[in-house]
Amino acid sequence: MLKINIPLTVPKNKEKEYVKNFKIANHNTGRLMMFAGDQKVEHLNDDFYSKGIPDEVADPEHYFKIANKAHIGVFASQLGLISKYGRDYSNIPYLIKMNSKTNLLTEKYKDPFGNIWLDLKEVIEFKKQSGLNILGVGYTIYIGSWYESDMFRQAAQLVHEAHKHGLITVLWMYPRGQAVKNGNDLHLIAGGSGVAVCLGADFVKVNYPYSDDRKKTNNNFSEVIKAAGRTGVICVGGSKQKPKDFLQSLYDQIHISKAVGNATGRNIYQRKLDESIRMANAISAISLYNYSVNDAYDIFLGKKEIKTCIV
Amino acid sequence: MLKINIPLTVPKNKEKEYVKNFKIANHNTGRLMMFAGDQKVEHLNDDFYSKGIPDEVADPEHYFKIANKAHIGVFASQLGLISKYGRDYSNIPYLIKMNSKTNLLTEKYKDPFGNIWLDLKEVIEFKKQSGLNILGVGYTIYIGSWYESDMFRQAAQLVHEAHKHGLITVLWMYPRGQAVKNGNDLHLIAGGSGVAVCLGADFVKVNYPYSDDRKKTNNNFSEVIKAAGRTGVICVGGSKQKPKDFLQSLYDQIHISKAVGNATGRNIYQRKLDESIRMANAISAISLYNYSVNDAYDIFLGKKEIKTCIV
Amino acid sequence: MLKINIPLTVPKNKEKEYVKNFKIANHNTGRLMMFAGDQKVEHLNDDFYSKGIPDEVADPEHYFKIANKAHIGVFASQLGLISKYGRDYSNIPYLIKMNSKTNLLTEKYKDPFGNIWLDLKEVIEFKKQSGLNILGVGYTIYIGSWYESDMFRQAAQLVHEAHKHGLITVLWMYPRGQAVKNGNDLHLIAGGSGVAVCLGADFVKVNYPYSDDRKKTNNNFSEVIKAAGRTGVICVGGSKQKPKDFLQSLYDQIHISKAVGNATGRNIYQRKLDESIRMANAISAISLYNYSVNDAYDIFLGKKEIKTCIV
Amino acid sequence: MLKINIPLTVPKNKEKEYVKNFKIANHNTGRLMMFAGDQKVEHLNDDFYSKGIPDEVADPEHYFKIANKAHIGVFASQLGLISKYGRDYSNIPYLIKMNSKTNLLTEKYKDPFGNIWLDLKEVIEFKKQSGLNILGVGYTIYIGSWYESDMFRQAAQLVHEAHKHGLITVLWMYPRGQAVKNGNDLHLIAGGSGVAVCLGADFVKVNYPYSDDRKKTNNNFSEVIKAAGRTGVICVGGSKQKPKDFLQSLYDQIHISKAVGNATGRNIYQRKLDESIRMANAISAISLYNYSVNDAYDIFLGKKEIKTCIV
Amino acid sequence: MLKINIPLTVPKNKEKEYVKNFKIANHNTGRLMMFAGDQKVEHLNDDFYSKGIPDEVADPEHYFKIANKAHIGVFASQLGLISKYGRDYSNIPYLIKMNSKTNLLTEKYKDPFGNIWLDLKEVIEFKKQSGLNILGVGYTIYIGSWYESDMFRQAAQLVHEAHKHGLITVLWMYPRGQAVKNGNDLHLIAGGSGVAVCLGADFVKVNYPYSDDRKKTNNNFSEVIKAAGRTGVICVGGSKQKPKDFLQSLYDQIHISKAVGNATGRNIYQRKLDESIRMANAISAISLYNYSVNDAYDIFLGKKEIKTCIV
Repeated sequence: MLKINIPLTVPKNKEKEYVKNFKIANHNTGRLMMFAGDQKVEHLNDDFYSKGIPDEVADPEHYFKIANKAHIGVFASQLGLISKYGRDYSNIPYLIKMNSKTNLLTEKYKDPFGNIWLDLKEVIEFKKQSGLNILGVGYTIYIGSWYESDMFRQAAQLVHEAHKHGLITVLWMYPRGQAVKNGNDLHLIAGGSGVAVCLGADFVKVNYPYSDDRKKTNNNFSEVIKAAGRTGVICVGGSKQKPKDFLQSLYDQIHISKAVGNATGRNIYQRKLDESIRMANAISAISLYNYSVNDAYDIFLGKKEIKTCIV
Repeated sequence: MLKINIPLTVPKNKEKEYVKNFKIANHNTGRLMMFAGDQKVEHLNDDFYSKGIPDEVADPEHYFKIANKAHIGVFASQLGLISKYGRDYSNIPYLIKMNSKTNLLTEKYKDPFGNIWLDLKEVIEFKKQSGLNILGVGYTIYIGSWYESDMFRQAAQLVHEAHKHGLITVLWMYPRGQAVKNGNDLHLIAGGSGVAVCLGADFVKVNYPYSDDRKKTNNNFSEVIKAAGRTGVICVGGSKQKPKDFLQSLYDQIHISKAVGNATGRNIYQRKLDESIRMANAISAISLYNYSVNDAYDIFLGKKEIKTCIV
Repeated sequence: MLKINIPLTVPKNKEKEYVKNFKIANHNTGRLMMFAGDQKVEHLNDDFYSKGIPDEVADPEHYFKIANKAHIGVFASQLGLISKYGRDYSNIPYLIKMNSKTNLLTEKYKDPFGNIWLDLKEVIEFKKQSGLNILGVGYTIYIGSWYESDMFRQAAQLVHEAHKHGLITVLWMYPRGQAVKNGNDLHLIAGGSGVAVCLGADFVKVNYPYSDDRKKTNNNFSEVIKAAGRTGVICVGGSKQKPKDFLQSLYDQIHISKAVGNATGRNIYQRKLDESIRMANAISAISLYNYSVNDAYDIFLGKKEIKTCIV
Repeated sequence: MLKINIPLTVPKNKEKEYVKNFKIANHNTGRLMMFAGDQKVEHLNDDFYSKGIPDEVADPEHYFKIANKAHIGVFASQLGLISKYGRDYSNIPYLIKMNSKTNLLTEKYKDPFGNIWLDLKEVIEFKKQSGLNILGVGYTIYIGSWYESDMFRQAAQLVHEAHKHGLITVLWMYPRGQAVKNGNDLHLIAGGSGVAVCLGADFVKVNYPYSDDRKKTNNNFSEVIKAAGRTGVICVGGSKQKPKDFLQSLYDQIHISKAVGNATGRNIYQRKLDESIRMANAISAISLYNYSVNDAYDIFLGKKEIKTCIV
Repeated sequence: MLKINIPLTVPKNKEKEYVKNFKIANHNTGRLMMFAGDQKVEHLNDDFYSKGIPDEVADPEHYFKIANKAHIGVFASQLGLISKYGRDYSNIPYLIKMNSKTNLLTEKYKDPFGNIWLDLKEVIEFKKQSGLNILGVGYTIYIGSWYESDMFRQAAQLVHEAHKHGLITVLWMYPRGQAVKNGNDLHLIAGGSGVAVCLGADFVKVNYPYSDDRKKTNNNFSEVIKAAGRTGVICVGGSKQKPKDFLQSLYDQIHISKAVGNATGRNIYQRKLDESIRMANAISAISLYNYSVNDAYDIFLGKKEIKTCIV
């Protein structure tokens, strides 16, 4: 049986709620497959409308259609967006992304800071009022940014408040800003995952340097995992790769680096609906159920169905 | 019958109120004709007093006289201004513009930021106390500005709170600031309309690059509409154009670009009262009731009356 | 009978109070004679101690002695100063100036910003507790300053709250800051008076370019008046002028430019007490009761008494 | 009998308390002898440990030993320090210094600003809970600093709140910052004392330019006194001087310049305990009881005792 | 018997609680051995993963394993981290470190500031809900930093609130920032310890210039101790040294400089568990029980056990 380490910030009368949210998000596997959907702000329309991206991707509802049909852990997006579509997609397991910024202000102009949009109490009220299946909240921190100290306070309070209400918490943790030389440096990424556990987060989403030497990365990535301690590390999916390559990376993250899941956006949704769903399922097959790369690839190709029991 | 997508941020006991406000503002058409009246702050006296502008435009009451007699969806202006004239113009459908800045601080001095003037609870109290027909609120965001993160938080909270009280919400969304190269770039405008739906707005008012190649713009504008998803896109009217040209633009925005309305200020009010009213009606004829450009132009010329049934 | 336009921000149960405050401040004339007394902060000791200024001016009580004996509309000063002298001068009609800054930080160092000193609720409590005759509040905005957005929010909230309690409101409105080329430009001053009505103010105190061509100014000043709409425009008195010249300016502001009063400081108080009182009366004679310049000058000279009936 | 001008910010039910605090602090003389003890933050360890300073000065308790045995009006220091020693020195009349900064950040790095450490309600609660004899509060303002507007708001609120609770208030008022050419200019110091009365303070502590021509200073200092009106002016003691010289300055401040007391730190405490106490007494002899310089000097030398009746 | 100076900020009904917390943290010795564990944020992963550091150090649980088995006064770390491990390590005496920053933003980019993560009321609630043995709170101040005034307010309020609830308080006090030439200057360090007592702190953790002439430092360090008065001074352990050298330093700090304890991190935890525990015990032997260096070294070598009675 899955052992869940309930943080002490979860009050006794919310432990059941926390465990329930944790288990639903993890499909009882202890692994988190997060379908990341905050890019409409973070990347503006760049991910949704350009050459080679199918037309239907441009519609925000594409996100929801995928999340509705695919086997995912949570779909992470802004509360506002969810408020516009949630009525028609009430079965999706949601995670509210609490802060977002656009990509217009590069470091040349301002160090990165995504101010929190709403206070947690609004999420709690919204969850109750909407009846939506909201399992947790997420927040992005840029360590090394000029605004680091603001983000640390917002994140610490968010995690603390969320646990008080039995919600799970995910921190997006990226080294960025004028003072940061290389945000893909594993030692620095490990520093960030260490910060996440000090903030009490349940999961931390970190960079995975896809462009570096893959073998070396997979082996050295253990520093990141160790530094996070009881906070689960999940890797960012990044820009779209060839399907099998991406699935192989994912497999290695889980089985070599010992990540406990993944956070994928573009590799899922920059496809037609059907293909998106199959890719999400292929990802879950590896992330949650330890499928081989080939078997997962067959799921992506539509040759196999995902079986959601623990293999 | 008009299908209204009620956002989940509207509580059950406010759904009726939201639908009522939405329908009044839209005249049951699903389209929004907004008479924009926040320029006395945004442009100081530039729009109201110069060569070629009739004398009566200089008086703030000109706004109210037009809004009182013309067929409009909502008249958008600052609460303070409305408080000075509302007693004599209590039938106008109002939308409170919550933030405004002057045009004195150019990007050379400071990136644009219009701080919110009053908290939403003041609007609610004012609506009740004054008995005015306040249907919604509006707020300007400059994506890419140094103050983007402040505006995102203010806007997110405003939309959230407004929906809680059954009000409709409109975001003015402009890419601006030192980091923004071209605020008329359609891909960037589409990015902004995507931000609006993530903030949960009901309508987003965006730039329309009137000076670019018109045909190309009309066709490519669909990117903006798609990115906004369930948030309705309305186009800014901009500086005064020749009446028929302006009406043609409007027609194309509705029928080619698939905008769901318009937000017009100068093209309406920089005229004598009678002409202003006829222009507002001509605009509504196209925006709300699908009149042809020629028929609408006849309304402007006073040769025809507007009929407010859905064609 | 004087028609008072009660703003809708005044609740029904405070309308009487607002009308009473308005009428007392205006002596039932619809015009406002404001004795401006915030210079001890704004100009430090420059206005009170230098060659040619009588010794007694150096004592802050000089203000109160004048206000106590002269025929004025309101005496505008900081709450703290009033708290030190009010016990002995309880009959003066007061207006609390809510923000003030010194003249040390020139634009070279910082754009102008006078933070609000106390919240309005403190004024209300102080009024009740002290029994003083506090009729309203005032606030300075520098449009075009780097801090414009902070001042807009503070002013909007102040006007809103003050009206809630039936107080009248006056905005000092000056274009200033690194981005402002010429704060005496009438078009810009008109922009400011337009901002004041959008903020819901009852009166706006603006620059009057005394050093420019007087005839041209008087005629063109109508732009400023028109832009303010239902907000009454009163002109700053500025630095000390020859008595008759000053009274003539005042007369022209009222009868040519159509200002509804004046805000005078130095031209009143930089004199011995007796002369100060006579000047204040001469000003009121013109501002409130339409005296001729010669008759008002006779009041200043002590040859005539002011009669406070409406001529 | 001493006439006390109770500011109107003191509510009726706190007038007795205010009068009591005022009288205790003044020993019924209307003059204030303040033993200034905030230097451990303001000057770090510079005043307490260097050549020529007796060893015992290094111990913070030295402050309390002096204040306990000497005849002083109030001992001004930080609440935190008082909380550590007050149990053993419960008879000292205390004034809480509410803000303090170190001397490390020179104008080259940042204009001076001492943020308020605790809100007034904490002082009130602490006074009640500790049973200490807390008579008032103090706050430092640097007029002309980039942070002037922040300090004005904090000071205005502090004075207002303190009076509500019957406490007396002292403002440290220094012209400083990049925009200030000469903080010892008497006209500027007078400007500051004028600001203090506008803030409603009971006393204002100002610079006294000890290094300038003494006779000229004493005569011209009246500008500072006059500008302060009903706010009592007390002069800073500054760095340590020869005892008799310092006492002479003090005498002149009282009898020529018409200051109503003094605020002395280093000239008292940078001595062995016994000598410190005698200096404090000598100062009080002049400040409060109009002793001659020679008689006060005899007190310092231990040849005379101070008699605390009004001479 | 140990005499405890209870600050007057501790209310009567919390004196017992304060004394209990103080005594537990001090093992009735009046000395504080703090196991400092906030480096995962302050130094990111630098202290935990590099050549010469045993593998097990990389796991955050290493901290807890040491603190659980070693004889320590308090283990200081972030609340979030403690929330993840505290359930399995409920016997550790904890001190919550309330602010932390990473080492990425060097002075070149921004002066140091560690914003407070959570408000004290959250600690109180967490203590009650978790049942953990939380004895106090800690906070880092950088005197001389551009953000000094923010940190002074946060620290003053934290100490004040913590005492209200009977918690003990420790300030990390370091001179740092562009305006600070040498943070190891003893006179400056003494300035900082003087600030700590003015803030009412129970203990202050300061730099000890290990690389300077040791004999001179030990003798001159008394300035730091004296300046702190009734606030106990404990010295930072700094980077890892040879065991006996480190223990000798510690001995000298206690017996020559008169520090009342120590705050050690890296010199304890950058070892295998067993050795870490023995080092912690060796430190406590000196810090708390006046062991000789040789006897303490024998404890480190495992040749002796620590006896926890007062020698």
